[in-house]
Amino acid sequence: MNPTTMLYEGKAKQIYATDEPSVVLVRYKDSATAFNGVKKAEIAGKGELNNRISSYFFRLLTEQGIPNHFVKEVSALEQLVRKVSIIPLEVVVRNRTAGSLAKRLGFEEGIILPEPIVEFYYKKDELGDPLVTEDHVLVLDLATKEQLKTLKKTALKVNRFLSQWLEERNLILVDFKLEFGIDEKGEILLADEISPDTCRFWDKDTKERLDKDRFRHDLGRVIESYQEIWNRLEGEKNV
Amino acid sequence: MNPTTMLYEGKAKQIYATDEPSVVLVRYKDSATAFNGVKKAEIAGKGELNNRISSYFFRLLTEQGIPNHFVKEVSALEQLVRKVSIIPLEVVVRNRTAGSLAKRLGFEEGIILPEPIVEFYYKKDELGDPLVTEDHVLVLDLATKEQLKTLKKTALKVNRFLSQWLEERNLILVDFKLEFGIDEKGEILLADEISPDTCRFWDKDTKERLDKDRFRHDLGRVIESYQEIWNRLEGEKNV
Repeated sequence: MNPTTMLYEGKAKQIYATDEPSVVLVRYKDSATAFNGVKKAEIAGKGELNNRISSYFFRLLTEQGIPNHFVKEVSALEQLVRKVSIIPLEVVVRNRTAGSLAKRLGFEEGIILPEPIVEFYYKKDELGDPLVTEDHVLVLDLATKEQLKTLKKTALKVNRFLSQWLEERNLILVDFKLEFGIDEKGEILLADEISPDTCRFWDKDTKERLDKDRFRHDLGRVIESYQEIWNRLEGEKNV
Repeated sequence: MNPTTMLYEGKAKQIYATDEPSVVLVRYKDSATAFNGVKKAEIAGKGELNNRISSYFFRLLTEQGIPNHFVKEVSALEQLVRKVSIIPLEVVVRNRTAGSLAKRLGFEEGIILPEPIVEFYYKKDELGDPLVTEDHVLVLDLATKEQLKTLKKTALKVNRFLSQWLEERNLILVDFKLEFGIDEKGEILLADEISPDTCRFWDKDTKERLDKDRFRHDLGRVIESYQEIWNRLEGEKNV
């Protein structure tokens, strides 16, 4: 399975075809972007940590029976995943107020929500990835009512598992973004990545941010925080 | 029922107490604002036309059995309404793409939606009246799940009736904004106004805008268009 043609280059990853038509290779980049691409930087070591962390989470979710695209980690920067057609929706699960939710509704960050909520954002750079309602998703023909139910249910299941799992490692899962794709059989698979680029992880005691917010808000020690997340996962391996 | 103390002054209306505690007097102003107050003007005659048009629509909706705040029209600029505590939500019903929906999702204006959709916007000037999901409404504690259902159901009922009624007057009801309030018995009443300030009315043949978009986008003949809406309602009276 040697990578051949580059099929797509995103802000943080490149996708290559392999000699297996249903499988593609993902290569993680060190590039970081925020605020719809307005803020950019290279963060040495980020690609490798995100590849490791995301591979780790997907293996955990596979064990939990969550249908997903992950095949295997093949090198420091690369993993093989099933080829899917990405549904252009960011599926965001929130346990506490933070980021755009806090800003939109006028909350301070960190308030525990009465129950986790799921939001959909339309992945469309020119529009600034706007929040959309379920009716908007249907009007845009991005997913059917049935598919929306599946996305929501799966996202909440991932949240229940990961929140608990991370809490045992003294981390709060504040919120996170998932993406889903449809494979050649029409099955919906959890796709993209799960990493400090796509989740807000706070230390349970100090509430220290250990995620991309350190880059977004110039909090310093960006790579050290990604490394800290990896260390807490690695700790598990040695138990 | 002489107006005494002014209880509230909004962008387009003033509210006065009357000697009946459960009733307030609404005085329509000629002021026009758009884009969250950035654009302002005085449009002579607008207050009177909106008072007439809104009174007219509320009488129609009362006949249709829609619980609402309207009591009676008392002068050219004034009407009496039941005192309610306004739910800080703009309930928007859309039959076609236009305005913020078109901009948000990247549609041109005028596309007929597969079915009417209802959106909620949080009435909060400092936040720019953001679109909110039903989960946000619950988190903000603006309405209960049950109340949201009532708002949605009532809004769609109003839409079905008004769309048909306006079509018979050669007008397309593109979209409109409703507000609701809760009276002293806890009942949800349709409140605020229904006028060319809060609805998009297009001529069915020419697609000419006969509403506040003429002011928003400097299309000229603002008051003439409001007058045209009134004429088409008045036409009905003489049938």
